[in-house]
Amino acid sequence: MTKKNAFYAQSGGVTAVINASACGVIQAARENSDKIGTVYAGRNGIIGALTEDLIDTSLESDEDIAALRHTPSGAFGSCRYKLKPIEQSTAEYERIIEVFKAHNIGYFFYNGGGDSQDTSHKMALMSKKLGYPITCIGVPKTVDNDLPITDNCPGFGSVAKYVAVSIREAGFDVASMAKTSTKVFVMEVMGRHAGWIAAAGALAAEKEGDSPHIILFPEVVFDQEKFLARVDECVKKFGYCAIVVSEGLSNTDGVFLAEAGGKDAFGHAQLGGVAPVIAEIVKGALGYKYHWAVADYLQRAARHIASKTDVDQAYAVGRAAVEFALAGKNAVMPAIVRTSDEPYQWEIGEALLADVANVEKMMPPEYITEDGFGITEECRRYLQPLIEGEDYPPFKNGLPNYVELKNESVAKKLKTTFDIA
Amino acid sequence: MTKKNAFYAQSGGVTAVINASACGVIQAARENSDKIGTVYAGRNGIIGALTEDLIDTSLESDEDIAALRHTPSGAFGSCRYKLKPIEQSTAEYERIIEVFKAHNIGYFFYNGGGDSQDTSHKMALMSKKLGYPITCIGVPKTVDNDLPITDNCPGFGSVAKYVAVSIREAGFDVASMAKTSTKVFVMEVMGRHAGWIAAAGALAAEKEGDSPHIILFPEVVFDQEKFLARVDECVKKFGYCAIVVSEGLSNTDGVFLAEAGGKDAFGHAQLGGVAPVIAEIVKGALGYKYHWAVADYLQRAARHIASKTDVDQAYAVGRAAVEFALAGKNAVMPAIVRTSDEPYQWEIGEALLADVANVEKMMPPEYITEDGFGITEECRRYLQPLIEGEDYPPFKNGLPNYVELKNESVAKKLKTTFDIA
Repeated sequence: MTKKNAFYAQSGGVTAVINASACGVIQAARENSDKIGTVYAGRNGIIGALTEDLIDTSLESDEDIAALRHTPSGAFGSCRYKLKPIEQSTAEYERIIEVFKAHNIGYFFYNGGGDSQDTSHKMALMSKKLGYPITCIGVPKTVDNDLPITDNCPGFGSVAKYVAVSIREAGFDVASMAKTSTKVFVMEVMGRHAGWIAAAGALAAEKEGDSPHIILFPEVVFDQEKFLARVDECVKKFGYCAIVVSEGLSNTDGVFLAEAGGKDAFGHAQLGGVAPVIAEIVKGALGYKYHWAVADYLQRAARHIASKTDVDQAYAVGRAAVEFALAGKNAVMPAIVRTSDEPYQWEIGEALLADVANVEKMMPPEYITEDGFGITEECRRYLQPLIEGEDYPPFKNGLPNYVELKNESVAKKLKTTFDIA
Repeated sequence: MTKKNAFYAQSGGVTAVINASACGVIQAARENSDKIGTVYAGRNGIIGALTEDLIDTSLESDEDIAALRHTPSGAFGSCRYKLKPIEQSTAEYERIIEVFKAHNIGYFFYNGGGDSQDTSHKMALMSKKLGYPITCIGVPKTVDNDLPITDNCPGFGSVAKYVAVSIREAGFDVASMAKTSTKVFVMEVMGRHAGWIAAAGALAAEKEGDSPHIILFPEVVFDQEKFLARVDECVKKFGYCAIVVSEGLSNTDGVFLAEAGGKDAFGHAQLGGVAPVIAEIVKGALGYKYHWAVADYLQRAARHIASKTDVDQAYAVGRAAVEFALAGKNAVMPAIVRTSDEPYQWEIGEALLADVANVEKMMPPEYITEDGFGITEECRRYLQPLIEGEDYPPFKNGLPNYVELKNESVAKKLKTTFDIA
């Protein structure tokens, strides 16, 4: 078998540690340069494959590739672009395979969430069918922690740590001001469908009265009366109330509260997220002074407070992807297997892409307390190890010293172009 | 002279490092226990003095007092409560002196911003007038960086670092997604009157094209047309545009943009801050997909990413306050004096409370670029050292291990009570 090149791309919303996976893939490939040729990265994810816009990672120094491990976001660009269903059109798959053939690419490493694993799976099938078999390995990534089979998803642990650290710190702040000022604090976090990120906020509360006092999950329909009663109880008992709310919180009609908040004078929907809506509900009913925060991208980009567990796992799945490919595996994804809670231990296992594709892992009902406002001990046991350990990036001039790669393009070989819809 | 006790209180909005000042005060007092008795802390700031609600800090272990150095927010509680002007009523001053007399308190250490320094100054005057002279020393604190005389204010450097780190990280995120998703990111920061915090965000941009691309200062009237042209230019040139906006951004009528955004269907003012207003203006005019974040309390509570310079200075002004008192000084405040830019060097100087009280230090016009969207080299030279150095708190279970004190009350000695207005 002649030595084939590899293609690596980042897909969907980026995370604080997806570049650690890229680092793992590229370093493992470099260590096996007798078996794998150049790693080409897709500029802006799969769009790079479709448009033959490939980045030659061999032009990056070992030092810069190593620095990816501590650099957040997608170093080669990511994209929100889903290939068309095969039943509808195979043109995109055909084009990618044409590009891969032209550049002697025999390995496809796709770093993303459920959609991306589906794409990897279909690539494996289609490449075989089209007579140019490609080894397709998925690399898991998603802050939402909603991939099946793998115990958890690289990217989640760091956003979980950020959210828990932030609500602890804000809780200390509000507690000290509550006598004469803010009594209710609302922090909005990501997670439109699954409440994993909101749940992680609860890790900050280690004893009664600790911040946060209330978690509002997307899995639990918002019960305004019950919520207000709990807020009032907390303020009376602890002096203040700290709340973590998922952006996906919905009302009884299944409508996102962020969108149900009414229109402004110009008929526009509320500009704000769900945090200001919740804060205003509290103010209207109970009169307490509030403050709110929307962390938005800050939470998933916060490499400065990444979980060491998360960084280690993101790097490990990157390396494992290459090792799987070299071991002759195909249409699989490295998965994280928990072998012990205390002490926390994990190893890399293997999941079939067919089993991972398009399955969303939601919070199990037994992870949410009966009142719907908190997490159970079982949930805490699951989440706790994922935020363990710090892995600070190097700093320069008081700021994290993140790497920007050269990202030089590979010369195009095809005469044809491809338009992205 | 018999040994007098000391009173220490925290005032106004708390910071990531105000407890480092408390640590400095208490440790210095303990080291001079032959000259200073017990340090009593006011529970919820000056309210503790008025209501004779004193905390006996001597019951806290050396270890816990040392841990204040790495714990954000106000360990004894702070408050937003300003004493009445002396011309209007001296009852509050008289009450405080009555409480101090009862507890043999001869030192008053007041940790706060401009208002608090005014209070300390008046306390010095009134105590003399009432025949019970008290040594009054101010301890500077404010994230707004708006105290005069002192080169900078403890509390500011850490919020500055948080803002610069966050907009750098979010910038990396948006840059990698911009091809198919978010192109404009808006981060709202504190600073209702002075743009110091917004300016600090600009430190993240070290070369052309770096995030953030635009700073919107409270000192510069919002020029929508010019702003939109710049946003469009950035998106076209760099692929995306990252914006830091001060909560105090105002329009030509001097109205905060956060409040000028219109009313919702129920006639309520917009719930959101200024970030969503700015984002919507961009979307409406240019059609770019946006995201926005409001850091709110997260920014001033973020001890996990505090500036070491800031922590060191906050601690130093706390210690210096006690040293000043023991040296027989009165009605003064330790100030930070910059003796060199490169390498950055500072020492503790002395400011008269009379000169500090009620003066706001705004951004000098020469710190803002001519176009109004950035900072000058002079401003960068001033700000850069303030965010230098990391000073991570200890972690436990993946989270910062902040201390909560016992905060035991001192037995009341007075028969009278005092109602807080």
